[in-house]
Amino acid sequence: YFLSDIVALKPAVMGEVTGAELIAEALKTQKVEYMFGIVGVPIIEVAMAAQAAGIKYVGMRNEQAVEACRLYSKFSARPSSLEAIPSVIEKAVRTSIYGRPGACYVDIAGDMVNAKVNRISCCPPPPVSLADHSAVTEAICALKAAKTPLVIIGKGAAYGRAEALLRQFVEISGLPFLPTPMGKGVIPDDHPNCVAAARSRALLQADVVLLFGARLNWILHFGLPPRFNPNVKIIQVDLCAEEMSNNVKSVALLGDIGAIVTQLLTCVREHGWKYPSSTEWWGSLKEKIAANAEISKGLALNTTLPMNYYTVFHHISQQLPHDCVIVSEGANTMDIGRTMLNNYLPRHRLDAGTFGTMGVGLGFAIAAAAMEKSRDKSRRVVCVEGDSAFGFSGMEVETMCRYNLPVVIIVVNNNGIYSGLDPEAWKEMAKMGDLTSIAPPVSLLPEARYDQVMTAFGGQGFLVRTAEELKSALELSLSDWDRPSLLNVLIDPSSDRKQQVSAAL
Amino acid sequence: YFLSDIVALKPAVMGEVTGAELIAEALKTQKVEYMFGIVGVPIIEVAMAAQAAGIKYVGMRNEQAVEACRLYSKFSARPSSLEAIPSVIEKAVRTSIYGRPGACYVDIAGDMVNAKVNRISCCPPPPVSLADHSAVTEAICALKAAKTPLVIIGKGAAYGRAEALLRQFVEISGLPFLPTPMGKGVIPDDHPNCVAAARSRALLQADVVLLFGARLNWILHFGLPPRFNPNVKIIQVDLCAEEMSNNVKSVALLGDIGAIVTQLLTCVREHGWKYPSSTEWWGSLKEKIAANAEISKGLALNTTLPMNYYTVFHHISQQLPHDCVIVSEGANTMDIGRTMLNNYLPRHRLDAGTFGTMGVGLGFAIAAAAMEKSRDKSRRVVCVEGDSAFGFSGMEVETMCRYNLPVVIIVVNNNGIYSGLDPEAWKEMAKMGDLTSIAPPVSLLPEARYDQVMTAFGGQGFLVRTAEELKSALELSLSDWDRPSLLNVLIDPSSDRKQQVSAAL
Amino acid sequence: YFLSDIVALKPAVMGEVTGAELIAEALKTQKVEYMFGIVGVPIIEVAMAAQAAGIKYVGMRNEQAVEACRLYSKFSARPSSLEAIPSVIEKAVRTSIYGRPGACYVDIAGDMVNAKVNRISCCPPPPVSLADHSAVTEAICALKAAKTPLVIIGKGAAYGRAEALLRQFVEISGLPFLPTPMGKGVIPDDHPNCVAAARSRALLQADVVLLFGARLNWILHFGLPPRFNPNVKIIQVDLCAEEMSNNVKSVALLGDIGAIVTQLLTCVREHGWKYPSSTEWWGSLKEKIAANAEISKGLALNTTLPMNYYTVFHHISQQLPHDCVIVSEGANTMDIGRTMLNNYLPRHRLDAGTFGTMGVGLGFAIAAAAMEKSRDKSRRVVCVEGDSAFGFSGMEVETMCRYNLPVVIIVVNNNGIYSGLDPEAWKEMAKMGDLTSIAPPVSLLPEARYDQVMTAFGGQGFLVRTAEELKSALELSLSDWDRPSLLNVLIDPSSDRKQQVSAAL
Amino acid sequence: YFLSDIVALKPAVMGEVTGAELIAEALKTQKVEYMFGIVGVPIIEVAMAAQAAGIKYVGMRNEQAVEACRLYSKFSARPSSLEAIPSVIEKAVRTSIYGRPGACYVDIAGDMVNAKVNRISCCPPPPVSLADHSAVTEAICALKAAKTPLVIIGKGAAYGRAEALLRQFVEISGLPFLPTPMGKGVIPDDHPNCVAAARSRALLQADVVLLFGARLNWILHFGLPPRFNPNVKIIQVDLCAEEMSNNVKSVALLGDIGAIVTQLLTCVREHGWKYPSSTEWWGSLKEKIAANAEISKGLALNTTLPMNYYTVFHHISQQLPHDCVIVSEGANTMDIGRTMLNNYLPRHRLDAGTFGTMGVGLGFAIAAAAMEKSRDKSRRVVCVEGDSAFGFSGMEVETMCRYNLPVVIIVVNNNGIYSGLDPEAWKEMAKMGDLTSIAPPVSLLPEARYDQVMTAFGGQGFLVRTAEELKSALELSLSDWDRPSLLNVLIDPSSDRKQQVSAAL
Repeated sequence: YFLSDIVALKPAVMGEVTGAELIAEALKTQKVEYMFGIVGVPIIEVAMAAQAAGIKYVGMRNEQAVEACRLYSKFSARPSSLEAIPSVIEKAVRTSIYGRPGACYVDIAGDMVNAKVNRISCCPPPPVSLADHSAVTEAICALKAAKTPLVIIGKGAAYGRAEALLRQFVEISGLPFLPTPMGKGVIPDDHPNCVAAARSRALLQADVVLLFGARLNWILHFGLPPRFNPNVKIIQVDLCAEEMSNNVKSVALLGDIGAIVTQLLTCVREHGWKYPSSTEWWGSLKEKIAANAEISKGLALNTTLPMNYYTVFHHISQQLPHDCVIVSEGANTMDIGRTMLNNYLPRHRLDAGTFGTMGVGLGFAIAAAAMEKSRDKSRRVVCVEGDSAFGFSGMEVETMCRYNLPVVIIVVNNNGIYSGLDPEAWKEMAKMGDLTSIAPPVSLLPEARYDQVMTAFGGQGFLVRTAEELKSALELSLSDWDRPSLLNVLIDPSSDRKQQVSAAL
Repeated sequence: YFLSDIVALKPAVMGEVTGAELIAEALKTQKVEYMFGIVGVPIIEVAMAAQAAGIKYVGMRNEQAVEACRLYSKFSARPSSLEAIPSVIEKAVRTSIYGRPGACYVDIAGDMVNAKVNRISCCPPPPVSLADHSAVTEAICALKAAKTPLVIIGKGAAYGRAEALLRQFVEISGLPFLPTPMGKGVIPDDHPNCVAAARSRALLQADVVLLFGARLNWILHFGLPPRFNPNVKIIQVDLCAEEMSNNVKSVALLGDIGAIVTQLLTCVREHGWKYPSSTEWWGSLKEKIAANAEISKGLALNTTLPMNYYTVFHHISQQLPHDCVIVSEGANTMDIGRTMLNNYLPRHRLDAGTFGTMGVGLGFAIAAAAMEKSRDKSRRVVCVEGDSAFGFSGMEVETMCRYNLPVVIIVVNNNGIYSGLDPEAWKEMAKMGDLTSIAPPVSLLPEARYDQVMTAFGGQGFLVRTAEELKSALELSLSDWDRPSLLNVLIDPSSDRKQQVSAAL
Repeated sequence: YFLSDIVALKPAVMGEVTGAELIAEALKTQKVEYMFGIVGVPIIEVAMAAQAAGIKYVGMRNEQAVEACRLYSKFSARPSSLEAIPSVIEKAVRTSIYGRPGACYVDIAGDMVNAKVNRISCCPPPPVSLADHSAVTEAICALKAAKTPLVIIGKGAAYGRAEALLRQFVEISGLPFLPTPMGKGVIPDDHPNCVAAARSRALLQADVVLLFGARLNWILHFGLPPRFNPNVKIIQVDLCAEEMSNNVKSVALLGDIGAIVTQLLTCVREHGWKYPSSTEWWGSLKEKIAANAEISKGLALNTTLPMNYYTVFHHISQQLPHDCVIVSEGANTMDIGRTMLNNYLPRHRLDAGTFGTMGVGLGFAIAAAAMEKSRDKSRRVVCVEGDSAFGFSGMEVETMCRYNLPVVIIVVNNNGIYSGLDPEAWKEMAKMGDLTSIAPPVSLLPEARYDQVMTAFGGQGFLVRTAEELKSALELSLSDWDRPSLLNVLIDPSSDRKQQVSAAL
Repeated sequence: YFLSDIVALKPAVMGEVTGAELIAEALKTQKVEYMFGIVGVPIIEVAMAAQAAGIKYVGMRNEQAVEACRLYSKFSARPSSLEAIPSVIEKAVRTSIYGRPGACYVDIAGDMVNAKVNRISCCPPPPVSLADHSAVTEAICALKAAKTPLVIIGKGAAYGRAEALLRQFVEISGLPFLPTPMGKGVIPDDHPNCVAAARSRALLQADVVLLFGARLNWILHFGLPPRFNPNVKIIQVDLCAEEMSNNVKSVALLGDIGAIVTQLLTCVREHGWKYPSSTEWWGSLKEKIAANAEISKGLALNTTLPMNYYTVFHHISQQLPHDCVIVSEGANTMDIGRTMLNNYLPRHRLDAGTFGTMGVGLGFAIAAAAMEKSRDKSRRVVCVEGDSAFGFSGMEVETMCRYNLPVVIIVVNNNGIYSGLDPEAWKEMAKMGDLTSIAPPVSLLPEARYDQVMTAFGGQGFLVRTAEELKSALELSLSDWDRPSLLNVLIDPSSDRKQQVSAAL
């Protein structure tokens, strides 16, 4: 999956039907398989032409990100004539997948006349480059000299499809690794070298950090103290030169991630080197992992009702198939879920937080499920949403029902944003005056029945208060391949992540 | 109501709490009574400070228009220091209500330090100007010479609060008039001089058209043939010089609409002139009105099931209180509803179509209902939505339920956009293959239970198939002042406006 | 003059010649008489077509403001087809002259095909509106109650062509007045009621200020202390509602300035009121004017060499014809020149400082001189430039020579920006090392011969060091109507405005 | 040279002097040696602080490209606090030299308070990557199979400092090569393998084209027919993935150009392959080169007066030292000069045409000459300008004179843009009426004395009409290292490039 090939298209009314046909044909040539849109006068003909050309069309209910697309896209164009459409679409598709992947935006005006059109063929696969040999050697020397080395695997490794090579590298080198949110699953989260459960200690005490396709941005605390060792040596493996030495000086291995992992592997094998599993560093990390596991287990097996986040995610993680696609958005829900729900395959997680925009989760889930539907052996799409996040685009459950897309939505519902009120407290407050004057801005309606929003359109809905109800509802949902389900999981509205997390990590 | 005083505010994290207090105080000084927002980290403190300052806060579920606001706003600013906030907010509020009303946008950065702040007082009411006497005389001469005159009342007349004066003018001058969508209710739609039911003929055959606060844009077909007489003389009354002679040369009466109506009234009275009710023009218009009424009545009283648009709106119009606020968005739903649902008071209609953006209707209804709640004698807010339009922000029914805002939502549901399929046809199609390949892009899920989206959050929901069910559901909804209701009115999915309208108008 | 009708046009290569003809014809229809451009491939055909259509074309050397135009223009459009060009050009011209005047920008793409075109006629003159009667009454009452009233005349009064009426108003009311830089000449600067020479005192002590088309921006110190009386009552006459009560609450007389002056005059006459010339206020102002005149005279008649700014401007002011057009840009040169060079006619001054962009002066002078050339009795265009300002577009003297435009350029040359070095000091410094390491950033080449830049292209050039040389050179320049002249007036490079001004004002 | 490290800085007034010092120090840390600016209030302190920190400052007369910089820059930022300045400047410098080089823009607001600042060190040199081995092999196979191969050397090869390696590659492989305008000099233009004089034939008949750092844009006719063989095989060596297969599918060698040339060389050596010098292709190219040389020689040795372009450039090329830096802008002047003036060293040509903006030439020449001044053995900077191009920034000759920068400017003066009129024709035309109505838009003043613009500021000026005068003037100019010179070379104003070129190439 991944959004590496999204091309937003904004077509306007065409002077003649041929305009729509032309767009559809150009998309088909570039091997676009799916089109997502909101139907309005201009797009209807394009959607029909796309279907006629063999492209699948999914009509959405609200496509709020389009304008955003244009502003933040890697390439944005407005063909000045019909005959320019095929080459502009080729350029958009090519630019979206060459170099650092990114969305592109094509705005097609309405009042263009028809004309003869050149044939454009599909663009070739992205080119590949290798790291400079001296940089590779420098990196290996640094790793060999390291006392407390750490590998970090980012989404660039997933985009670059480097999973098999990276796993080899981690196993042969014996190094501990951490994934970033979108790097989860490149190597399975339950791999013995994964030290995600000791993330803070690993970042803070590492003396050499080897990054594969992970940027030194806010997600990695910019590579700076107090979260990183001030004397840490950073090695960056990335295809984007401009990311190198960003915030912190680094050894720069510029090029395709898979190709560079091969270079590193060759070196490691030649040197016959492996980081020993008996070091103090491994001991310290494993001790922390074990301690954290104990705390998490305590929270997870807590039987107090309403449930807390850890209990909920513990039971979900027990039941999810390893090959499922996990989409997630929210605040606590996304943050805690990221640590509690394992990924076992690369490109099987869409973490809305990376994009910073709430409301994209259901759209991602629909896209993933529509693509799965056309596979021989399709996989589950599970969408884990905070209750506030679900509100941004909750009406898209109608789209799932309309196309029979068997998405499993789990709304972790704490009656609010960050925290909410329980029904009794809410009722008492309502008696005291106008709620617009006194209700906490973070509160939503207590025990809102999001599950009924799903049943309204023919999907399955479950109201879940206990671990047993959660287990049973999830089992029923996962066994139904014909329609979507929504689990409305009520948790303790006053529970706050901080107290739990400070203990846990 | 009206959106004449919307100021979008985008505050970021403040260095100290005083930042939030400062914003709240500045809004209070400018007499802002309500604040609408989406809660996230930065806005929470501002929302709480606003409540503490006596401003009511309504937390929404999805505020997609904010970015749009900034792009299309009349004034946009980013205060460079905390002490600049009060004067920037004053400027934004003032600019939004002076001259042509429009939204303003204030973006407040997070990392500003505190400082001493100047006191800014609330801005005075907007200034008023009059038309040039010679232009007034020219206008009156043109009207006196006209054989087939027509008055058009636009939203500028509503913004300008010119209703009492305009009614006097229409009655004393004896002229036929038409409202634009947002001008409806400035004079009641059932006024004997209203010729809205003969709109096309009136526009086409008028020889002199007098516009009050109505722009010559696409809503009025730019004032051009084939919808207007090519030799029509246009008189424009508007406070915006740049609108004058836009597309068509006109006699320009520049200034405050109320003040200019007074000037015109004085002239008409001095001349002792009145357009006779016995003219051929009045005869022709009345004949057309009667004929259209007959056709509408036929459609409205048609008892075939599923119902058509006219039947639905006919029964709604029978029951709505005259002082209700009507919000509407959609395609056919909005267009036909506009002709069938009368407005009797100015500024009691919010017609989403003018803004061109789907998804704003429920937000408008919430704003209106929240304001009504604080009035002594509150009025009904009725929100008439197409089913596709409802999908853009349907989750806002949770907001209505949360704050006990008794909005009546009527979803006119034809299972699609422009038109849809009935459940049987849909099922047959689903058997034929993957729906993403074959389902018409305009189709939505047949008989989707939007009413259950309302009951999911504790409001009333009604599934309506017949006129009797409609009548009874609307009665129940209108009698409940404690919570919102949603009527999911199923109509004939294959019915198309065109065939009906071509007959009707 | 004035820039009220500038429409920047950026045409690109046309598919066929008819594109250029279409633009030329549309401009002609809108009564555009002059076109200014920089010739490159795309514009040549448009320029030739414009000449063929009877529009005069002036080819410039560097048109750096075009991109700026687009960013700051009141209206900006890109016609999507050839047939849209005439109506877009009409809209641009209309928008530039209706409401508050402003530049408009039309960007015409190159690759458009030909099509049939609708006939668009020239837009009518701007509409006029009057002030509300009650606001007029309030203004008159405030003036009658004032002890220390002041009138300020801004560029809006000049744009509005209100000069005759304003002069009547000032004379009948007996009020003291001040012009803003671009309001100079609406009433002659030497009018007995003009108190420009006591500007600071007048602003500071006025209790009622009546503004005609002057904005409360930085030029008027925002109407705030410490430059204004904190209790001052402001009356604003302006056609732009949004300017009203900007920074300071005011009585707002909204509408056409000429029309409102008529309203005020009627009132003043009815009341038979006149502000007496025997007041303390008049006494105080006249005393200050006399004192400042004495100081200026001292500086002006100072015979030390090199000359100072006041001596230079004194002698220039003695010789300039009263009907000349004065263009000015620079720092001290523009500021001091504004106080020392009188304007006697409205719209005869183009003060580059209002636009904030250096380098526009010579372009303005060329435009003015080209228009003068086609008049029966043409007037002098005099361009007063600082030496740094002249450098921005000095090559435009070739344009003046090419078209025989008899502009008189006076470069007031202090060898730098704000201040410079004399030739000896410069030579000494050059001996000390690399000038890029040690030369003061504000220094330019001492005694640069800007006069020879003019003679290089066939104009007259004069190097001026003394008052006698200045007198004689200016006499020769003003007597030559066939070619431009440049007076390179060397002044004391170390003289600083501040010391002189603190004494003078 | 080259503009690979331009960082435009727009500082505003600082609250305290420390702001300016901070900027200066940050620039110094990033090893910035020169600062170019236009002095105004805000920049003075920064310029002085820069000089104090040991950075050289060159004050210009008109910096029109700054706003453009911001719009087209690779990175643009506005630090939100003083303490962010060093890291933002580091990021700007780093981004400008990492990946594809490009200008960056930093806008520093004025009203920031002081604060403690982190120490940021200078960014490391750009990282390097290699091409995928299989792509290298594919490229070598294609070259070996080629009948009519061609190498094209672009500015990327110059930026990448790959000159020594590329020369080895060309000589060992025996391939013919062409430079792009900015690739001239990477290998000397007089190298026996250079087929620039048969450019059209080489492009059209090549069956395999190997591009080193040259984009498939308009300068290379997009790699498409009719200028390229429709079946041509393209091999691209470039560090920018997004350029690969742009317009035409290609074999993509992604990475650092020098590193990839090394890879290719290794391969070529291993295979022991060399393209024979005895092929038909070499025969055909050499024959065309000889024929074109004959024609050029004919034009160059033509003794008719006024001179033509070829004569002028022939004599210039005879005298220019091989290590001089050539800056050029204009239309015919730049195009013909590019073919007639050889470059012998890489990064010794600044071809304004690549940037598309007229008026940058003199600024480039000043920057180059200022840098040369601080070298032990400085080289000549020669600026070849069309007369129209010179007009855009001609006043910068004062800057050259001020700092004693010995630039040699050669204005090739044809009295117009593309073509002009001779003095007699111009005088006749002037008698016929107002020149703004009848003068051809492309005409400038005949025989304008641009040389006197130089003498006005103390430089040397020469009016040149004959080959002898040209020779003598150039000799005098090149022998004077203390001040700039300008040769105003009058050529035949009616001469048009086309007739000459169609013969020549």
